[in-house]
Amino acid sequence: MSISIQEAAAIIRENDNFLILCHAHPDGDTLGSAAALCRSLHALGKRARVHCNDEIPQKFLYLFEGLKEQDFKEKFIISADVAAVSLLGEETAQKYGERVGLSVDHHGSNRLFAEKTFVNPSAAANCENIYLLIKELGAPIDKATADCIYTGVATDTGCFRYTNVTSKTHRIAAEMIDFGADAGAINRVMFETKSREYAMLERLALDSLELCLGGKAAVITVTREMMNESGAQDGDFDGIPALARQIEGVLVGATLREKKNGKFKISLRTHEPVDAAEICKTMGGGGHPRAAGCEMEGTPAEIKVKLLEEVKKAL
Amino acid sequence: MSISIQEAAAIIRENDNFLILCHAHPDGDTLGSAAALCRSLHALGKRARVHCNDEIPQKFLYLFEGLKEQDFKEKFIISADVAAVSLLGEETAQKYGERVGLSVDHHGSNRLFAEKTFVNPSAAANCENIYLLIKELGAPIDKATADCIYTGVATDTGCFRYTNVTSKTHRIAAEMIDFGADAGAINRVMFETKSREYAMLERLALDSLELCLGGKAAVITVTREMMNESGAQDGDFDGIPALARQIEGVLVGATLREKKNGKFKISLRTHEPVDAAEICKTMGGGGHPRAAGCEMEGTPAEIKVKLLEEVKKAL
Repeated sequence: MSISIQEAAAIIRENDNFLILCHAHPDGDTLGSAAALCRSLHALGKRARVHCNDEIPQKFLYLFEGLKEQDFKEKFIISADVAAVSLLGEETAQKYGERVGLSVDHHGSNRLFAEKTFVNPSAAANCENIYLLIKELGAPIDKATADCIYTGVATDTGCFRYTNVTSKTHRIAAEMIDFGADAGAINRVMFETKSREYAMLERLALDSLELCLGGKAAVITVTREMMNESGAQDGDFDGIPALARQIEGVLVGATLREKKNGKFKISLRTHEPVDAAEICKTMGGGGHPRAAGCEMEGTPAEIKVKLLEEVKKAL
Repeated sequence: MSISIQEAAAIIRENDNFLILCHAHPDGDTLGSAAALCRSLHALGKRARVHCNDEIPQKFLYLFEGLKEQDFKEKFIISADVAAVSLLGEETAQKYGERVGLSVDHHGSNRLFAEKTFVNPSAAANCENIYLLIKELGAPIDKATADCIYTGVATDTGCFRYTNVTSKTHRIAAEMIDFGADAGAINRVMFETKSREYAMLERLALDSLELCLGGKAAVITVTREMMNESGAQDGDFDGIPALARQIEGVLVGATLREKKNGKFKISLRTHEPVDAAEICKTMGGGGHPRAAGCEMEGTPAEIKVKLLEEVKKAL
């Protein structure tokens, strides 16, 4: 059942011993949401702790700095930035999936799996919703909480670049900075820092870039050899698929990445009006309109021919 | 002489037939400042036009869309985002440099070359000052003006990434979005689009990158030959200096760029606590704490030795 922010706050006031769940493969928004809410609940004298199915990446550990670890039997479960039970991760979904009492989310696709759901898809980041909730609860926002909320807002908007940003997003960022959020330092870690390995991988990836179909498509190929040469881990790869689409005139950016089993993972990024998900569907994959993926077999040359045929049809 | 924003507005109210000057090698902030101010002056029934020593890059032309071209003999000259006469560009400096009646700027290093100067170094972008001035003048802000101000604010802050961003910066961005600024589209052009030539130049620049001083400094060298190979124009160069500083552990990113006269322009980007302006000052240059520049002569190898000596002292 969908509820208002006031009702969500009322539910929190009436309960205690909260377990706050993040989605699996956690990002800055789900972790920032959970950590900010947990801090506020502590400030209100409630007991609360955060749980994530997967390990929290090193670069997000500051979100939990100084957060008191509390040990108690959870009585009420909240999920933050989780659109469906399956996104909690297998183990967490099995253990807690059916017991989520309140879901606070910004995905229009939220499956309403929780008993009560506050979903506000106009929020660029779920941390915007968490901020509204904290204000509704009347909890104070200290520097650490402000850092958490700022992190979610910045990371889910590509640092205020994307079309999901509204004036509200900027006003919340402004308030967090006034509450002491260290925006510059957070942005430096999130957006301005590349590991040496990633920098090398990017260099090799850009060296492989080919413009095709009269410059409307660009293809990057990353082989295992290139991964090894750069010293990059698979997790370092996340930023690469965005590169091909960034070139002027390119509507479809495709990145071929050789997997350990020799097959290729194709990541497609498109500009309007090309639908990446539609193209990937024809090859057994799927995704979002601007970002989708599939898997293909063969040599890079064979894959490119087949892929570009499908891209050509879509153009 | 330094004056307040109220005094700056009073001067504008008392005058007419304005020529608004940008700095040479114009960027989004100087052009956004000038175009926004020009639009506001027109809205107030004043005559005004913008002049820039150099050609306005294609990607900034939208700032001037729908701006009425007015032909008149200039009576009062304003400079926007110009810290020193020489930055106007040679021809413009000669023609108008001594006649600037009002300078509106955000560089702490402003040389106070104008008759009256409103300088506010706490503004991340000069467009923040222009916004204050427009509000002080009581001029309306339409969508086109909002686009100009948003552009300056976004481009001078790396889209709200840098440490110069304050809560005021975000609040102004919020207001501009409320006034209709097309933030998503502007950001796509400014931050998500690379010309083919720029993409090629970036590739060559990254290939030249060297880590020095135990990984605390990174140096990129761009020769005329590389510029020619990439097909890039000098205006394409703007994004390159940021690259060296992005590598994990690097506190000083230096970019050497060979000018047409064979000398090298050095662009320094630093992380706290290293002061880029201090380093560049020792070599006759200047700038901001995190971004500064100077000019050096010699071979790239000679320049690197000399430069790294100064960097080492600062580390």
